Amino acid sequence: MTENLDTTPAVTTEIRVAIEQLVAEHHWLLDHGHADRLYTLYTEDAVSVGPLGTMNGRDAIKAWGERRVTQDAGIVRHFSGGTRLAWENGVLTGTTYYMTFRSTQDDPLHPASVGEFREEYAQVDGQWRIRRREIVPVFGGHNAAAHARRLAEGDK
Amino acid sequence: MTENLDTTPAVTTEIRVAIEQLVAEHHWLLDHGHADRLYTLYTEDAVSVGPLGTMNGRDAIKAWGERRVTQDAGIVRHFSGGTRLAWENGVLTGTTYYMTFRSTQDDPLHPASVGEFREEYAQVDGQWRIRRREIVPVFGGHNAAAHARRLAEGDK
Amino acid sequence: MTENLDTTPAVTTEIRVAIEQLVAEHHWLLDHGHADRLYTLYTEDAVSVGPLGTMNGRDAIKAWGERRVTQDAGIVRHFSGGTRLAWENGVLTGTTYYMTFRSTQDDPLHPASVGEFREEYAQVDGQWRIRRREIVPVFGGHNAAAHARRLAEGDK
Repeated sequence: MTENLDTTPAVTTEIRVAIEQLVAEHHWLLDHGHADRLYTLYTEDAVSVGPLGTMNGRDAIKAWGERRVTQDAGIVRHFSGGTRLAWENGVLTGTTYYMTFRSTQDDPLHPASVGEFREEYAQVDGQWRIRRREIVPVFGGHNAAAHARRLAEGDK
Repeated sequence: MTENLDTTPAVTTEIRVAIEQLVAEHHWLLDHGHADRLYTLYTEDAVSVGPLGTMNGRDAIKAWGERRVTQDAGIVRHFSGGTRLAWENGVLTGTTYYMTFRSTQDDPLHPASVGEFREEYAQVDGQWRIRRREIVPVFGGHNAAAHARRLAEGDK
Repeated sequence: MTENLDTTPAVTTEIRVAIEQLVAEHHWLLDHGHADRLYTLYTEDAVSVGPLGTMNGRDAIKAWGERRVTQDAGIVRHFSGGTRLAWENGVLTGTTYYMTFRSTQDDPLHPASVGEFREEYAQVDGQWRIRRREIVPVFGGHNAAAHARRLAEGDK
């Protein structure tokens, strides 16, 4: 019951701000045509899990991003906030709420999905990076799955 | 006209980051089945006011949270952001925007309510805690009221 | 490809927190009837560009704000988040996602527009201020334009 209270103080000002910047950079790159630079935010052994499937390692994420910038996925905005950080068993973990808006939806002003990014972070050369990222579409999973399918079919 | 300019500098980096972490922790606990730990974020004399009624004191908030985790309130996500802090008459105050998504709505991707948390904070043993919390559903008050009614009826 | 990595470290903890407070203060003032104080957040030579037109200089922003508080624009909430900061050619730039909710919409719980504020900042007497602000309604531009028209007509 008290484990959370015990660990919260260890999320320092510097850590919280660095992670917020990291999370914001991720969405900005993806939404503004720079998916090919997303891999720079991950550790070498990073794992990404979600509607798009599982990506193992920074190289897989790099390959995905390089392909992603050549595809027409429409205009997308990942609105994010509420990042909650906590140390769990010596690992810095974070949950960030997100809301996705897509031009490919009938009504782009209606959220296509609402969910959370559950992440683990690690420091590399003094920089915080994503070591594990799980995309959990709490609401609108069907839209997220349809989007993943469209992207996959675009590759054929 | 200038009171705001005069007081804003006193919201230090450390204060702002601590409050953001506090606000995020509150939503995370409530949305992830840990309402029984919410009381740890409040001062002993805390007051909470909103569609669910008024709760006086940390013990009342603890009792509410312990009951809340036994109820089926559906899946809920409180998306928050835009926290604005200011010192008013020596009290640290904050306004955080929120948007609520609920599985119990006909369309869970449509916000059930949009509003703000108007809070006052105080330090206890060096930790910032909530001393007063007012939940103000700016839009969608009818949905918030219906949700409060469902929870109350669930207690019978 | 690496320019972003090279510059990101220069966004210090202090800078990021100061800008977040600045961005939050802007929305809070506008949404809570204090548009006449918005100009205090801008530099003397600030430029604001968006659906409401272009405003050149702090005095123009001041005049706009003083007129705005006399108008009935309905109840508005600018939900914001995901602020991404980066130094570009020696200038601190930021992108903040926003979502606007308005009582004047048929359904106030449905976002009237979703977009981003693209900003440039500069320090004045040690305080970070907005030097350039571009309002980009990515989705819902028609609603933003209609709102601008209503405000303009209200001046006649």
